[in-house]
Parts: sequence; C-alpha cells; structure tokens
Amino acid sequence: MIRFECDYAEGAHPRILEAMMKTNREQTPGYGEDDFCAKARRIICRACGNDKMDVHFLVGGTQANTTVIASILRPHQAVVSASSGHIAGHETGAIEATGHKVITIPAENGKINAKQVRKVLTDHWSDSSHEHMPQPAMVYISQPTETGTLYSRRELTELSALCREYGIPLFLDGARLGYALASPENDVFMADLAQLCDVFYIGGTKVGAMFGEAVCIVNSKYKEDFRYHIKQHGGMLAKGRFLGIQFETLFRDGLYLEISKHAIEQAMRIKEAFTEGGCEFLFDSPTNQQFPILNRMVFTELAKRYTFTTWEKLPGERTAVRFVTSWATRPEHVDALIEDVKRLLMLYGDR
Amino acid sequence: MIRFECDYAEGAHPRILEAMMKTNREQTPGYGEDDFCAKARRIICRACGNDKMDVHFLVGGTQANTTVIASILRPHQAVVSASSGHIAGHETGAIEATGHKVITIPAENGKINAKQVRKVLTDHWSDSSHEHMPQPAMVYISQPTETGTLYSRRELTELSALCREYGIPLFLDGARLGYALASPENDVFMADLAQLCDVFYIGGTKVGAMFGEAVCIVNSKYKEDFRYHIKQHGGMLAKGRFLGIQFETLFRDGLYLEISKHAIEQAMRIKEAFTEGGCEFLFDSPTNQQFPILNRMVFTELAKRYTFTTWEKLPGERTAVRFVTSWATRPEHVDALIEDVKRLLMLYGDR
Amino acid sequence: MIRFECDYAEGAHPRILEAMMKTNREQTPGYGEDDFCAKARRIICRACGNDKMDVHFLVGGTQANTTVIASILRPHQAVVSASSGHIAGHETGAIEATGHKVITIPAENGKINAKQVRKVLTDHWSDSSHEHMPQPAMVYISQPTETGTLYSRRELTELSALCREYGIPLFLDGARLGYALASPENDVFMADLAQLCDVFYIGGTKVGAMFGEAVCIVNSKYKEDFRYHIKQHGGMLAKGRFLGIQFETLFRDGLYLEISKHAIEQAMRIKEAFTEGGCEFLFDSPTNQQFPILNRMVFTELAKRYTFTTWEKLPGERTAVRFVTSWATRPEHVDALIEDVKRLLMLYGDR
Amino acid sequence: MIRFECDYAEGAHPRILEAMMKTNREQTPGYGEDDFCAKARRIICRACGNDKMDVHFLVGGTQANTTVIASILRPHQAVVSASSGHIAGHETGAIEATGHKVITIPAENGKINAKQVRKVLTDHWSDSSHEHMPQPAMVYISQPTETGTLYSRRELTELSALCREYGIPLFLDGARLGYALASPENDVFMADLAQLCDVFYIGGTKVGAMFGEAVCIVNSKYKEDFRYHIKQHGGMLAKGRFLGIQFETLFRDGLYLEISKHAIEQAMRIKEAFTEGGCEFLFDSPTNQQFPILNRMVFTELAKRYTFTTWEKLPGERTAVRFVTSWATRPEHVDALIEDVKRLLMLYGDR
Repeated sequence: MIRFECDYAEGAHPRILEAMMKTNREQTPGYGEDDFCAKARRIICRACGNDKMDVHFLVGGTQANTTVIASILRPHQAVVSASSGHIAGHETGAIEATGHKVITIPAENGKINAKQVRKVLTDHWSDSSHEHMPQPAMVYISQPTETGTLYSRRELTELSALCREYGIPLFLDGARLGYALASPENDVFMADLAQLCDVFYIGGTKVGAMFGEAVCIVNSKYKEDFRYHIKQHGGMLAKGRFLGIQFETLFRDGLYLEISKHAIEQAMRIKEAFTEGGCEFLFDSPTNQQFPILNRMVFTELAKRYTFTTWEKLPGERTAVRFVTSWATRPEHVDALIEDVKRLLMLYGDR
Repeated sequence: MIRFECDYAEGAHPRILEAMMKTNREQTPGYGEDDFCAKARRIICRACGNDKMDVHFLVGGTQANTTVIASILRPHQAVVSASSGHIAGHETGAIEATGHKVITIPAENGKINAKQVRKVLTDHWSDSSHEHMPQPAMVYISQPTETGTLYSRRELTELSALCREYGIPLFLDGARLGYALASPENDVFMADLAQLCDVFYIGGTKVGAMFGEAVCIVNSKYKEDFRYHIKQHGGMLAKGRFLGIQFETLFRDGLYLEISKHAIEQAMRIKEAFTEGGCEFLFDSPTNQQFPILNRMVFTELAKRYTFTTWEKLPGERTAVRFVTSWATRPEHVDALIEDVKRLLMLYGDR
Repeated sequence: MIRFECDYAEGAHPRILEAMMKTNREQTPGYGEDDFCAKARRIICRACGNDKMDVHFLVGGTQANTTVIASILRPHQAVVSASSGHIAGHETGAIEATGHKVITIPAENGKINAKQVRKVLTDHWSDSSHEHMPQPAMVYISQPTETGTLYSRRELTELSALCREYGIPLFLDGARLGYALASPENDVFMADLAQLCDVFYIGGTKVGAMFGEAVCIVNSKYKEDFRYHIKQHGGMLAKGRFLGIQFETLFRDGLYLEISKHAIEQAMRIKEAFTEGGCEFLFDSPTNQQFPILNRMVFTELAKRYTFTTWEKLPGERTAVRFVTSWATRPEHVDALIEDVKRLLMLYGDR
Repeated sequence: MIRFECDYAEGAHPRILEAMMKTNREQTPGYGEDDFCAKARRIICRACGNDKMDVHFLVGGTQANTTVIASILRPHQAVVSASSGHIAGHETGAIEATGHKVITIPAENGKINAKQVRKVLTDHWSDSSHEHMPQPAMVYISQPTETGTLYSRRELTELSALCREYGIPLFLDGARLGYALASPENDVFMADLAQLCDVFYIGGTKVGAMFGEAVCIVNSKYKEDFRYHIKQHGGMLAKGRFLGIQFETLFRDGLYLEISKHAIEQAMRIKEAFTEGGCEFLFDSPTNQQFPILNRMVFTELAKRYTFTTWEKLPGERTAVRFVTSWATRPEHVDALIEDVKRLLMLYGDR
C-alpha cells in the first residue's frame, strides 16, 4: 500500500534526525530553557520580522489549540470557529473540556469571513439578555484550512481589523502552515501573521518534524504566565531541547519552505491528473490536500493500492476523498498514482 | 558545568536514535495504530507477564497522570496522594484543572501507607454529611517516590488490598520506574505492578527515551474509551510510531534495566562519597536521586562546577539538595564530583 | 405595563406562601433531609406511579440541567440537543463549563426525532477515528420545548427506545412541564416520563413555585452519589424545607395541574385573538407560550401597553414575538390584550 | 428534640415572609433586574458607605464562593485559604470543579495571618520553576471563621495590604456576617469590608433569610461580566425579586443587626453555662457558634434532648461539639439547655 491519507505517515526530515544525533550527548537544562530553544526562538522571530513576540514550543496541535484558548478566555467566553474547524470537530471536545463553548459558523470553502463573525458579535451584544449566552471573545481560524484552502491577505486583514475593533484576539492555527506558505496562490507571509494575528502557531508535526508546534504570541496582553499553561496542559516537554533542535533545523537555510514546496508540487501533479480525467473536487485546494470526488468503481480500484481518507459520502454512490502529500512524498509514488488515476478515469470516469 | 540536577539533561539513548533513523522512511498509520506500537505493546505485556493489559503510549508524565485520573474519576471524586506527590505540587494544578481535588496525606519518607489511606476513607464514609466533601476515590503513588524511596512489595500489597476492599483504583506513577527496578533494595517487579495496581505507567522520558510514558491499564473497568481521553488531553502523538519505536527499543534485550542499573551504580558512588565525608541525607534513597544536606561552604563550592537542585532550606544555613544520575551519566563526571565532595567535606565538613 | 414576557413575573402561588408561613417556626434538619421534602418525594413518586425513583429538589433549571448532565457523562462524552434547546443557547455555556460539548441537531418545530439522533450516533460509531470526536452519550429534550411544542407519546417512545438500544440516557427538562400536562393536545403523562426517561425534572419556578425543580432519577444507574453533585453545583439549599413545602403544596389536591390549566386557557384565548385577526405564528404551540408574527405597526402599538419577548426578526419588518401566560395571568389582562389585538389587527393587519 | 446543630433549622424571619406576601401579585422583570433588587442594592451600598460597589444577589454560599473565585482566577491560579476554610473542605470540591487548587494554610484559631500568606507568596515567586506549581493569586477568608472566631480590623488591614502589595484580590466570605457584626468583640464594620476587601458577601441564609447572599464587588477590576458568571453557575434566580425583597427587609431599620444580636446573646448564655460548669472549649468563639468539649456521659445525656454537631473526636473519649444559635433561637430552649448543662456538669463534669 502506498499511503496518501495524511502528512505524517513517515518519520522526520533526515536533517532533524542528524541534528539530534549530533547534539545527543550535550547536557542542557530541561523544559525549553536550553540554548537550542533560545536559538530557534531567535530564528523564528527573525523569519517573522518581529523580535518582540514570545515563542513557545509545544508538542502537538490539539495541545497548542487548547493551551492557547484556555490561557486567554475567561470562563463565560467562547471561541468562534468555522464549523469545519479542527477545534470544532476533531479534538474530542478538548476546548469544551477546558470549559469553553466553540461557537460555529458555516464555512464557505473552509473559511469564515469578517461579515459572518461580525454578525455573531453584534447578535450577541445587541441582545439585552446577552449574559444568558456564552460571550464570543476570540476568533480561531487555520491556514491552510481543514479543507486545504487559503485565506488571502485581504481576508485576514479584515478579520484582524474586526477583532481589534471588538478587542478580542485573532488566533491562527498553522498546523500545516508550510503548505500555505509554499502554495503559488498564497499572499500571506510569516511577517503578515506576526502583524495581523494576536497568537498563531507554526506547525512542525505535519511539515517534516518528528513532532512540535511553535506558538508565537504577538500581542503582549496574552504573554503573561503562558509557561504555567503549557505545563498544566502537559505540553512542557522535559527534554525540550528536542523541540528547539527541530525548529532550528527547519528554519535554518529555508528548509521549512523548501520541503513544503516539494509537497505542493506533488499535490499539484495529483490535482492535475484528476482534473484532466474529468474528476470534480469537493474543494478547490491550492495546497497539499486534494479532495477529488470518486465514483464507486474508481474508489474501489484506487483503494486496492493506495490509502486515502474518506471525506464525505455524496449522492449517487460518489465519495469525496482526500489525498495528502508531504515533505516526504516520493515522486515515484505519485507517478504510480497518476498512472492509475488516468487509466481508471478513462475506463470508469463519468465523462 | 557538569549537570546533576535531573535525569533528562542529555538526549536519548543512542539505540533509540538509531532505530528511528533506520525506520524513518517507512510509511505507517498515525496515532499509535502502527506496527511499531503494536510490537512495543506485546513486548511490554510479556515483560509484565500479563497479556490482558491495555498499553497506551503517551508523551509525558503530567499528561499521563492527568489523562488517567480524569478518565476514571467522576466529578465529585478526589485522588489521594502523598503531600509530596508529583500531582500534588509539581504539575501546575493539572489535576484540579480537570475538576478534581488532590487529597494529601503527609508522606513518611516519601511514602503513604495503607493505614493512613484507610483513615481518609473511613473518616469520609463515617461522616454523616459526607456529600459535602470530595469523595476519596483513587489512590496515587509513585515508584520510586519523589524522594527516591521505594515501596516494598508488602507495602504495595497492603495498599492494593485496601483499594480493592473499597472498590477504588490504585494508580502507580512509574516516571522513574527503571531506577526502582534496578535498585538493589527493590523487591517489586513489573509482574507485581501488573497484578497489584489497577493502572500504572512505565516512564521513558527519565529513563533513556527522548520522551514517552507507557500507560498500562490492568483493570478492565478502566479500559473503555481510553483513547478518547488521550486525544482530549493532547497526548495522541500524530507520529505515534516514534513512541512505539522507543519502547520497543527500551524493552528489547533488557536495555531498560541495563541502563537503569548504570544510573544506580553512579548514584551509589555519589551517596557513598557524601556518606563517607560525614554528610547527612534528607532521605535515605536507594535509587538515582540522592539528597545530601550541605552546609553553606560546601554548597557554594560545589555550585561552581556542578548543577544540582535545591530541595529544602534547613536551619543553620544548611540546604538539602538533590543530585540525580541517569542512563547517560558519565563515570568520569562522577569521578570528578566524588573527588570534589571528598576534598570539600574534608575542608569544610561538619565532622 | 402589563407583562406577558415570561411565566415568572409574579411571586409564588398563595397556597405556597401560606404553607411556608404556617410551618415557619418548626425546626428541621437542613439540606433536604427534612420531613417536608420526604413527604413531597412520596407525593411525586405516587403521581408518577413509580416509587423506585429518586427525587431531589434543586433550586433552578440551569442548575438542574448542569448537575444532571455533569453527574452522568464521562469527560469525553457529549449531550445531544436540539439547536434551540435551552442548554445549547441560553445557559451561558454552563454545560461546556463542566467540560462537555453540546452536539446540536436542527430542531423541527422545536423538536428532535429518533431518526435525527440515530444519524448522530451511527455517524459517530461508524467513523473509524471516532476517538477524535466527542462521543454522543446522552439525549436532552424538553417538554414542552423552548418553542412551546409538545412531544407526543409516540415520539417520546421512539427516542426512548433508541437511547436504550445504544445504552445512553434520555434526559427530559420539564421546566414548564405543567403547561404540557395541561395542554389539550398532550398525550404524555407523568407516568410515561417515569417509564420512558432515565432522568427528568418537574419545573416549579415557572409553574407557581417561588423557585425549585424536582429532579426524578428513574434509572438506578444514575442514582449513585447524586447528592454530592447537587452540593458541588451549589444546588443544595441549606433550608431545603422550602423546596419540600413548595412541591408538597403543588402536588397536593392537583394544584399543579389546576394552575397550569388556567395558564393554557388564557394562552388559547390569546392565540385565538391573533388567529382570528389573521396573524401568522412562528410555531403552532398548544401550550402557554404563543409566537405570533407582528408587522411594524402592530408591534409598536402593542409594545406601548404590554411587555413581550422579541423572538426573531423576519423579512419585511415583521417580528416573531412571544406572549407567555402563567398560573398568575389575570383574565382581565388578557381581556385588555385581546381587545387591543383585535383593534390593531383590524386597523393595521395584513389581511 | 431541640435543635442547636445549625443556624438554618427554622424558616425565614416573619417580616421577610410578610414582605413576600404583600408584594406577591406585583409583576416584575426577572433575573434580578426588578425594583426590589435595585432598592436592596442601594440600601446595602449605603450601609457600606460605598456607592460604587456592584451588588449581586445569589442563592447560596457555595454558589457565591464558586462564582466569585471562578470569575476572577485564570486557569493556572489558585486561591489561598485556611485549611479549615469552607471552600477547602465542605463544598464537595466545588472550587476544584472549576479548575482551581485551594492552597491551604494551617489555621490558627480558625484564622490565617498576613505572615503565613506572605510565606506562600514568596515561596512561590522565589522558586525558579514556579510555573510548575499553581500560582497563588487570591486570598479567601471568612468572617466569622468556620470556628466562630473573628478577624480584628488590624488583622484584616494587614491581609489587605499584603494582597495589594502583590496585586491579588482579598475575598471575604460573610455567610454568617451578621453574627460577626453583632459580637461584642468585633471591631470590623461593613464600611471596613467595603474598603479592605476586593470582594465580600453578606450572608442571608444563616441570618434570617429564606436563602440568599449579597455579593459586593468593591474592586472595579472584578466587576466586568459578573452576571454571565452568575448565570453559568446556576445562581441567577428567575424570580430574582425574592432576593431583593429579602435583603431590602433585612437591611431596613437595622433588622439584620438586631436579629444577629439576639443570636449572640443566646450563644453567650450557652457559653457561660458551659464555662461555669468547668467545661473547656475547642475554640474561644465570641459569635453564634460555641465549641464545648464534652466527656462521654455529658455528650450522651445532652444528645437525648438536643441536636448539635460532632466537631472532633478527642483523646479520652472526649468530643468537641458545636452548638449554634440564630435569629430564631427561643430563649426558653436555651433556658432548658442551660439547666441541663448545669445539672449534667455537676453530676459528670471533669471538675
């Protein structure tokens, strides 16, 4: 079986393992207070053009989301998210477990816009008995979104302006950030995030690291005592050095962008193959996740050689599925897939 | 500086890094459902002589404690711990953050005994208004304890019997379990844990792993839906393979015990040096943590070359400190320390 | 101003105040362990034809919902509710504050049906990565619903059967239960609730009591330790006698049903007036809440003399509003309202 | 049986019931937004000499404690309390259920002092790994204390100054405040509380009300959004008028102080009887709770006619018990008790 169901099927980028090996016998303090972490923080701040941010390294995405949100909201406050947002549906209620409601907005192409969020805010504040409802007090988005789409700089700027108007934080989940940055359609850069967001994080796990997410706190208001929250949520790795080493490696010499580009190239090859074969897509994604809609025969045949995710059952025995590439995707695997896709669509395609 | 302040100052055991390297390009499913994890589970079950246990791999200790406790207790229930227990004082209120009180018992030599726990239970249940108090419903201990001491098999058996009498679980935190198993004074083996405890975990982070704790659920009553809890608490590593690889490596060919023994040997050399120099100890520890009591001069001089933990300020400007060895401790570092200890105690010792 | 915006605008039924006065100097134990409570429990059990239920008296509805739900669910579990359910939108995230997600289903006429709930359950359990999502583990409904509609015995029986099939509890919020029981369209009786639900409660606050809800636990599985949960959620009234006295009064000589009938009669008079005037309704409610849709002129004129709730803004400057009657509604107030409604609809009505 | 086990054995002060009766048919808005509440707020502000405070009416003490503490603390923060504090032991872990640890200090005569609290604060902040521990961020005391003793104005001023030095709130639980104010030994007045505390509450339940506590928020920093928290914790009474009516009645014409004085007089008579009979006391209480130490014979005989609370078993078959008086205590009941105490101590006393 060749795996395309996620971007964490392989290990870590070889340079990361090498860096770990090379420094393995050095002694360092624990809990992220070592020199590797310090260096990684500086490199990330530089890459974001913002040396005032606080940068913290956490182990995983659910942890990063939970820790950031719980550290900021008061008990009666809620976070606003797309209904397809990761925190809304795929973290086993981790946000609710810290006491907060996730107020969901129907996503359009995976995204929410400033107009929708403004409605949530004005509906709340214009209701005379608003204290009977959770208070929307934070906006959560992800870049790329769960469905591979991208916020444009303009969309992000509008969301940011709205949040500032209401005095609430904008939090951006960048678990797959590399694949946004490397997309030809992207116009949002790291420096933009470090200006427009209050908090965001740079995903490692899905972009070549063994594990790890770099949480960047831009707005000073949310910096205080953040390490307590990391510890409380089980995210303070004893051997924190391994997080520092990974992010130092990823952000030195442009490795992060370079390996993300590779993933995008392979994803575009897959997209093209399906498109040329006449396949429709559930979402028009310019990043490393592709969502072709397969009929029963094509699905069945592809499933014999490849793993991919079933995303949504559609009428007429059609299924929207997800193919994912990563830094580690082998071009020869994509070659094989493309050949099969072409052949199968020729034989069983709807066109 | 030579570091003796903890057992996580170095990286991971070289064999672990090698195993990671060797398997790095293989594709696996995520979230611990890969073959490496499956294999590691089997090896651990075999080592415990119990093939009915569920074994789950989590990232860290605070996470393991929180996930286990929160998955078992109902909202009105509390966990009983030594006042020096890790959950009572060193996890930033992670247990309370899940809604549960930690009922503390003054530790004797780091341990709590069945008689003390029985008093907590009978006090609660004999009070006619017991519903006004949190219900003690779980016992938490660690082996070795926070202060390096060991429960004997008899002590553990008594606690276990008491818990069964009351129908409440006994949960053992084995973050440093290797250093208990390797201690010459130990008479509690893994098979004992897999019989006497309801849940326990085998620490990787402090015993040679990069990170990772293997939670073993012995009592079927507590097995249901545990993976939901791991996910909710941010402990479900996307690239779960890295946990499987580590535990498979540690438990193949007795590596876990072998490297723990090394740590104990070095710790005993340090203990002997302090003892011979006439130094007193805060606790009489037969494991990898040693707690000598230093006077001001000795403390100051040692602090110039070595890092160690300040444990407790005592009258007369004396300080109880902690020296910790690990699988990675270099004998030549211990040689240097011993020499300095001897010299300094000769010069400034209280004897 | 004449108030029709809620069913708690007046004090308590006079017989309740009299009973309180009469027994005021008697000494009783606290926290619901007095004879008044004991008696009220027996009367309620008898009225439900189920002497095995546990009956607990709590102060208010949000408290009752929170206490019941939090006492039953494990941390990874969620409660399923209509999106218009009280717990979903009008309790300031009280359920989430105890750690649980409220999974919402679009309501049809205020209700959810067994087919919709079955879909939620099968979707969850058929997903191979279900542990990444909150587990639906309880069904919450209210009778009457938030919009005044009623579950029929058949609908309730289907929901109950489904819950039993999946082994999850059915919880019915009866904050306005009297107004269901007294409705001419109702075919669900207290004995049905005590058979089909696992837990339900009988509302006092909105049906003539000063305050108070009687939680009835039918399924023994959920009885254990419930008093701890009441205390933890601040619902254990020190002078619990006042709850016992109220429910004893309400359930003696059929007072509860009698005063509810009065409310329904007045509500039907209002409904008729609007209907005859050609007004449409947002929901077709057979209980004490009526939801006529008013145009701008009628709204403005009525608002000068009466209070009522704005429910939903509709296109064309029309507004769905809510008029509520209660045990205390004065027929002469309704006379005045009817006269005004007739006059205004004649003048400004859409017909 | 004559009851002396608590101060909530009888109903409510007759003037409260009368006021409820008299206003019963008036229509008011719900949730504390009525004129009775508004008036009660003004009267309380005047009584405290502080018209800038926010005053909110909640139903009970556990609810008041939980709501205040949860509304103020961030998730990593803890509240400091005497180990005998109500929140530490008698609220079924309600504070922990909102996620916060209660850091306890051994009480001296029921009280904690500024020196003890300072040690907790400096210990925390001087520890270089303080983020591994819950952060002490609020001080909770009660007046009178759980054991009937009183903070002097000087003690309170010291605690207040310390809290301001550290920028953390001082929260005073006045569930029995009337009995402090009425004690001849008291030198802390309501105006002092409204200056020295950040938040405090005036107890109704135990001082003549049917139920109710008036939470006074002095420090503006903690005022924002408090009504959300009341709602979330189930404390927002639908018929909020009943809280307003009660506090208006209690604080008009000095009723609160007057009925508290009665309780103190009766308590002092009891105290005197035990003292004269040679009885020792567990605490020297100048308020309505008295803690005589009884030998087995005296205990057994008194228990035949009176209810009282067993407080602590002492060596030599002696038991510290609690006798409580209230606004409702009948002098003739105290006469009977005194006579019995005298007779029994004569016969079986230790002197």
